[in-house]
Amino acid sequence: LKNKQTDSFFSCGNTGALLTGAMLITGRIKGIDRPALAPMLPTKRGMTMLIDAGLNSSCKPLNYEQFAQIGSIYMRTMYKIDKPKVGLLNVGTEENKGTEVVREAYGRLSALGGVNFIGNIEGRDLTDGKCDVAVCDGFVGNLVLKLYESIGSYIFDGIYGIFGKNAFNRLAAAFFKKDVRNFFGKFDYESYGGTPILGVDGPVFKGHGNASAKTVMKAIECAVSFASTSVQKQMRDCFSTAAVEDEPR
Amino acid sequence: LKNKQTDSFFSCGNTGALLTGAMLITGRIKGIDRPALAPMLPTKRGMTMLIDAGLNSSCKPLNYEQFAQIGSIYMRTMYKIDKPKVGLLNVGTEENKGTEVVREAYGRLSALGGVNFIGNIEGRDLTDGKCDVAVCDGFVGNLVLKLYESIGSYIFDGIYGIFGKNAFNRLAAAFFKKDVRNFFGKFDYESYGGTPILGVDGPVFKGHGNASAKTVMKAIECAVSFASTSVQKQMRDCFSTAAVEDEPR
Repeated sequence: LKNKQTDSFFSCGNTGALLTGAMLITGRIKGIDRPALAPMLPTKRGMTMLIDAGLNSSCKPLNYEQFAQIGSIYMRTMYKIDKPKVGLLNVGTEENKGTEVVREAYGRLSALGGVNFIGNIEGRDLTDGKCDVAVCDGFVGNLVLKLYESIGSYIFDGIYGIFGKNAFNRLAAAFFKKDVRNFFGKFDYESYGGTPILGVDGPVFKGHGNASAKTVMKAIECAVSFASTSVQKQMRDCFSTAAVEDEPR
Repeated sequence: LKNKQTDSFFSCGNTGALLTGAMLITGRIKGIDRPALAPMLPTKRGMTMLIDAGLNSSCKPLNYEQFAQIGSIYMRTMYKIDKPKVGLLNVGTEENKGTEVVREAYGRLSALGGVNFIGNIEGRDLTDGKCDVAVCDGFVGNLVLKLYESIGSYIFDGIYGIFGKNAFNRLAAAFFKKDVRNFFGKFDYESYGGTPILGVDGPVFKGHGNASAKTVMKAIECAVSFASTSVQKQMRDCFSTAAVEDEPR
């Protein structure tokens, strides 16, 4: 990737190793303090990007700002969303909610040009699909991502338990088992085709260790499509003029 | 409550007002740095207490320790669980995972006597019911609580959409609509009967603003049962000898 012998990179291996490799070999885009993992979550209206979903346990206000910028570029270019709505994941919608860092992030996002910031969002707003990009630190994002999957699978098991309870139920359930399975399929965030690690200097995608052939196929399509767009160039342009205010940690 | 003219307090009003009242009028139990909201979440095995679910956006390691202690006392006494398993909500099971505060909390919980600490837990462990008490800061806890509800309701809507899709589905769904509704009913955490605010000097319970008569009835039962147990006394005893190491904020 660094020597331009490939345009895109995809791996189902260890996330830590993938990121370390991406950071050390490929490097960060100049001006970006911390790259982030950015999976898609299913919502009532479609999909929402969650950024960061686990690379940075604690974040500075600057990081939230940059996540909003790179997330917006990605959603605008890859999903053709004109002005991606960016929400800050918080415990209430009022401006003064949350920790000190999150409140400061709110201030920075409000003042930021080029990003369509809609304010704080709560859990319900996330599942309602109120925004296209949900910004948070990696600790919160990782928990949200894992809860989405695990609550989905918990309910799936519960529903299927009811479907299989007796012969009547099993017979009746045959009418919509396929629809129900498809609905829950949305909760496997990897089925959208790999999760981009945004902010490194080249398209890098992460897949599940136990990904199916179909999922890997989709991820590769996604990685190819990423490489053929101007996402990386836009990110480079966006941050080339930005003064990096904080020292990278 | 303060003047012992009532044994327990329950309100469906504003949480902030309820807590402020509880803190200023009733006061904290001596030695407890920060009281916490402690709802019950449905899991594959039953219920798990989530503490803190929103009173303290940021917490010190000491707070996690005290949440573990008061949560254990409550679960042991109210739910007759011999040695309540306490888990620390984190982004991985390894000891070195998470933010600095969470890692320090891990160390304190490991060294703590009288609490059955099982280590870090992730989203899946929570829905699997791996522990009886899940400890976290109020920012994370509030998000988890709201996501539980909103993902539950999102899936409920999705499933009911499929059930009502056409006449065949509607007919077939009649076989198990009741079971499905009961299953999702578990996701309304208030249906367990009010959420205790633990750490204030008297039993205080919080209900939803839009709670049904049935829910309020259950909450009142719960508040009465709390008052008739030794939970408050045990908490007082537990912290009366504890040196308060940090200054209350």
